Amino acid sequence: MTVAPDMVLAARLFERLRLDNTDQDGVTRDTYGAGEQRAHDLLAAEARALGLEVRTDAALNLYLTLPGRDRGLPVVMTGSHLDSVPVGGNYDGAAGVVAGLSVLAGWVAAGISLRRDVTVMAIRAEESAWFPVSYIGSKAAFGQLGAEALEARRFDTGRTLAEHLAGLGGKPDALARGEPQLDARAIDCFIELHIEQGPVLLGQGDVLGVVTGICGSLRYRRARAVGRYGHSGATPRLYRQDAVVAFAELVYRSNQDWAEMEAQGHELTLTFGRVDTDPHQSDLSKVAGEIDFCIDIRSRSKATLAEMDRRLRLAVRTPGVVFDFGAASGSEPARMDENLRQALTSAAAAHGLCAPALPSGAGHDSATFAHAAVASAMLFVRNANGSHNPGETMTMNDFAAGCAVLGSVLAQRAGGKP
Amino acid sequence: MTVAPDMVLAARLFERLRLDNTDQDGVTRDTYGAGEQRAHDLLAAEARALGLEVRTDAALNLYLTLPGRDRGLPVVMTGSHLDSVPVGGNYDGAAGVVAGLSVLAGWVAAGISLRRDVTVMAIRAEESAWFPVSYIGSKAAFGQLGAEALEARRFDTGRTLAEHLAGLGGKPDALARGEPQLDARAIDCFIELHIEQGPVLLGQGDVLGVVTGICGSLRYRRARAVGRYGHSGATPRLYRQDAVVAFAELVYRSNQDWAEMEAQGHELTLTFGRVDTDPHQSDLSKVAGEIDFCIDIRSRSKATLAEMDRRLRLAVRTPGVVFDFGAASGSEPARMDENLRQALTSAAAAHGLCAPALPSGAGHDSATFAHAAVASAMLFVRNANGSHNPGETMTMNDFAAGCAVLGSVLAQRAGGKP
Repeated sequence: MTVAPDMVLAARLFERLRLDNTDQDGVTRDTYGAGEQRAHDLLAAEARALGLEVRTDAALNLYLTLPGRDRGLPVVMTGSHLDSVPVGGNYDGAAGVVAGLSVLAGWVAAGISLRRDVTVMAIRAEESAWFPVSYIGSKAAFGQLGAEALEARRFDTGRTLAEHLAGLGGKPDALARGEPQLDARAIDCFIELHIEQGPVLLGQGDVLGVVTGICGSLRYRRARAVGRYGHSGATPRLYRQDAVVAFAELVYRSNQDWAEMEAQGHELTLTFGRVDTDPHQSDLSKVAGEIDFCIDIRSRSKATLAEMDRRLRLAVRTPGVVFDFGAASGSEPARMDENLRQALTSAAAAHGLCAPALPSGAGHDSATFAHAAVASAMLFVRNANGSHNPGETMTMNDFAAGCAVLGSVLAQRAGGKP
Repeated sequence: MTVAPDMVLAARLFERLRLDNTDQDGVTRDTYGAGEQRAHDLLAAEARALGLEVRTDAALNLYLTLPGRDRGLPVVMTGSHLDSVPVGGNYDGAAGVVAGLSVLAGWVAAGISLRRDVTVMAIRAEESAWFPVSYIGSKAAFGQLGAEALEARRFDTGRTLAEHLAGLGGKPDALARGEPQLDARAIDCFIELHIEQGPVLLGQGDVLGVVTGICGSLRYRRARAVGRYGHSGATPRLYRQDAVVAFAELVYRSNQDWAEMEAQGHELTLTFGRVDTDPHQSDLSKVAGEIDFCIDIRSRSKATLAEMDRRLRLAVRTPGVVFDFGAASGSEPARMDENLRQALTSAAAAHGLCAPALPSGAGHDSATFAHAAVASAMLFVRNANGSHNPGETMTMNDFAAGCAVLGSVLAQRAGGKP
């Protein structure tokens, strides 16, 4: 199979996605909102124009299928999500869906016939920035979302996930009952192309990378430290119960722990992404009596997550300030399928590219597929400026290389023996 | 002079002040707003009922005067401010005005005649929490406010100081022209009773304290650190430009500097009272690309302020994160008058109380009087839970002792030889 993916289509789709969803500073495709919906509508319309089968499930995940000759066989799947964080970039998620459709479009144009169905899945609601739940769309597809998640509220609208979903024509009741929308046994494999969200490939001079595993996370979304407000000029140092100073000590010490753990061979990240004193009570002339913040720990190892968690609690030791990390949430680490990894590495080599193995610090829907016992893999395309910000930048040349490698492996799986 | 101040009046005034200005969590008497105005109206009405002379100046400072026999002599003044920080306590400022009126009420009831005028000044706008300017009322009284300050905007209303002042009937144009409302040569002295805003007197078991000097301040209201946003899971530690971590290092290191400077004999405070990541761009799953905060340094020594400032700039050394402290503001340290300090200490002793000398870490209008070359002094009354918070607590017994000592010294100054 040497049919090239349709890069003209890909460029047009990226352009439309950006134009449809540009806000003042970046791209915003809000989960189960107008932004994400516009992207789904765009992809569905293009798929129909190509003659693909188009369907949605109860969670409004979108499936774009090129039927195979033997429709009873397990399906080859690819795809990613179409939502973005607020003020994010154009490629995080969307690249994987555009890649899948571009591959299929190339095959359609060439009149290629494959044995198995090949389905591009445009997944809903991967970003946890909107609702405090990870991987909503892919979990829902496997009946694993849980009724409680449907009551989670979107941070900006205050409306529940069930309300957002129902408003767009989805079926929250079916998800609440845990009805699976996909059967893992009917899926041959799931391969997700995604931009790398860190600087590693770019730093090494590699275009593509093959993911070894996806980090799990341990998160405290509503952590806080409570001390005591006091007059900034009249409260001597040793009398203070300063929440800002206590927080600073936590961040400082736990970052030292992180460096120490890395030196010991642990792989992890530790992030305090949001910090706020109370806008109503804090003041230039007051010692801060409280501070709110969040913590995000990620690792491919559950033991490493637990060790960082233990150390965080030991790093808290400012007299007179009480820490409450609040409820923990998170996700399990996931391993990528060894055969698929080898197939991707070989396909890259066949295209003259070295695609080194690297872990994914970010979470991805592929983890949900892997947890559901679907053979899963990820192909990273290098990308400047990270992700979750308006500056993310992938060249179309790099993307084309990724699509070619993805197309080769999808065709191998779809056309080979059952 | 052994006439007791009117403690029944004092208790009633405190009660009314609290009832008139209680919001959900504490007391809010907003500067040049409805809260402060209600307090001024209350004190003016009580003074008129006592037969005192009542007048205001262009800044709407309020003067309540018991005329003396020789009205050409320099006036003995006392008083404090009536505004509060948002969600503050009932005593910070108001105690000094209520004390002065209670002393005068006692004299009126006893038919006491003094040689000099004695004036209680209810000062406007001492708190810098509303407008980013310190000591507005007392500076305006001495023609030292400056035209620029009148264009400062109140943080919550967005309206300028000039607009707020004009709306209540004041004369911003006169203040902009620097027209003095008080003549320092016509003032014999200014004595301000105030709650202690720290825990020192309570810790030592002393009811009253005599202030040695008032700290000056060096403030950065709009400091920020700018790094780069990145994906929390995909950005390795050594690639990060994390504004939260850089801020934490600044706080941690500068607090160590503070402890070190204290060990070397410096007297100062250092406070980071307000911290915020950008609510629109920050997220659990992002490395923070920027953080806003404020810095407040206070000391009786200008050299100490400069040394802490120097060390703060050295404490900033996180690669990839750029700090901008923004414009500096602040106030000069002020010395209290030696004769008045001795008179207060002696009067306390005559009432059976040891009133130890202590510095004021907080700023006060007395500093403005001292800078204008008026002999000035402050008497602190002990107070639980600090100030600038709803928990501040002064007992009426302690307050009565303070009023008695204040009354003794005011009477000495007003009744003695010119």
